[in-house]
Amino acid sequence: MPETITFRRPVEDDFARVQDGLTHWWGGLGGEDGARQRRLLVPRLFFQHFTSTSHLAEDGTGRLVGFLVGFLSQDDPEEAYIHFVGVDPERRRDGLGSRLYHRFFADARRAGRSRVRCITGPANLQSIAYHTSLGFRIEPGDLDVDGVPATSHYDGEGLARVKFVRDL
Amino acid sequence: MPETITFRRPVEDDFARVQDGLTHWWGGLGGEDGARQRRLLVPRLFFQHFTSTSHLAEDGTGRLVGFLVGFLSQDDPEEAYIHFVGVDPERRRDGLGSRLYHRFFADARRAGRSRVRCITGPANLQSIAYHTSLGFRIEPGDLDVDGVPATSHYDGEGLARVKFVRDL
Repeated sequence: MPETITFRRPVEDDFARVQDGLTHWWGGLGGEDGARQRRLLVPRLFFQHFTSTSHLAEDGTGRLVGFLVGFLSQDDPEEAYIHFVGVDPERRRDGLGSRLYHRFFADARRAGRSRVRCITGPANLQSIAYHTSLGFRIEPGDLDVDGVPATSHYDGEGLARVKFVRDL
Repeated sequence: MPETITFRRPVEDDFARVQDGLTHWWGGLGGEDGARQRRLLVPRLFFQHFTSTSHLAEDGTGRLVGFLVGFLSQDDPEEAYIHFVGVDPERRRDGLGSRLYHRFFADARRAGRSRVRCITGPANLQSIAYHTSLGFRIEPGDLDVDGVPATSHYDGEGLARVKFVRDL
């Protein structure tokens, strides 16, 4: 019998649990430095000011098994942005990620947004395939990384990113 | 004759120049690791989605000499938040920081916000004195760091922060 997953909005006190997920759910990608980089990218401010478009998933015991941090663009009334998504690797086959994304799409539509954007690393082929399966298309870039269009120095010197956009 | 400083909203292409400021304007605080930490805290998304409450300062030659990245809380219609401020250390005596803060206060007031929040590190006595001089008061915390109230593990394990609030 599949376990029940509960979705809810994060509160500020969830910050530490999400930081823990950022440390442990990426299979050690980038070592301790990679974990620290992920943690720095999701500061507490998202759990104070953007909870109304973010989501947590918990299992039957209340353990955190997934999160999505997103927001409505303050500058562009047509746009919403997904900043960071994490799913416990033991739960990746449950469609949990997809349910988190679709909850965010619903938030964004309800707020009158017509498109959603997000990014990933050009070497993360799994993430690229995943976003494509969710209906995102890849935006043009100035690089070709093994056939994937990417934008150079997107998140700083040497940090290329693949840009995704999806209509809502 | 004092040099003219020009203020304007950032655009996405300003991202690289601000990253450069984050690298060089802190007098080497924290070494290369500290510079990288500051850069990670100000990702490109702020130059895409929150430019309408952010500000750049440039000197007469168009060189970047200061920036403020802030936003209106999406969740709390009374609140605005200042995420990161940087001023070229050669320009710190020109009142440039204060002019950036006051521009943000005006943005926030215009958007109907009644208070602004921000944080700093408890060891950064210069920043604490500076925020106090701008009318911020320190919020209570669970730590006392040499007489300064701070909140433990605020930005992650071991990263205490001083919380400021100011009425608008």
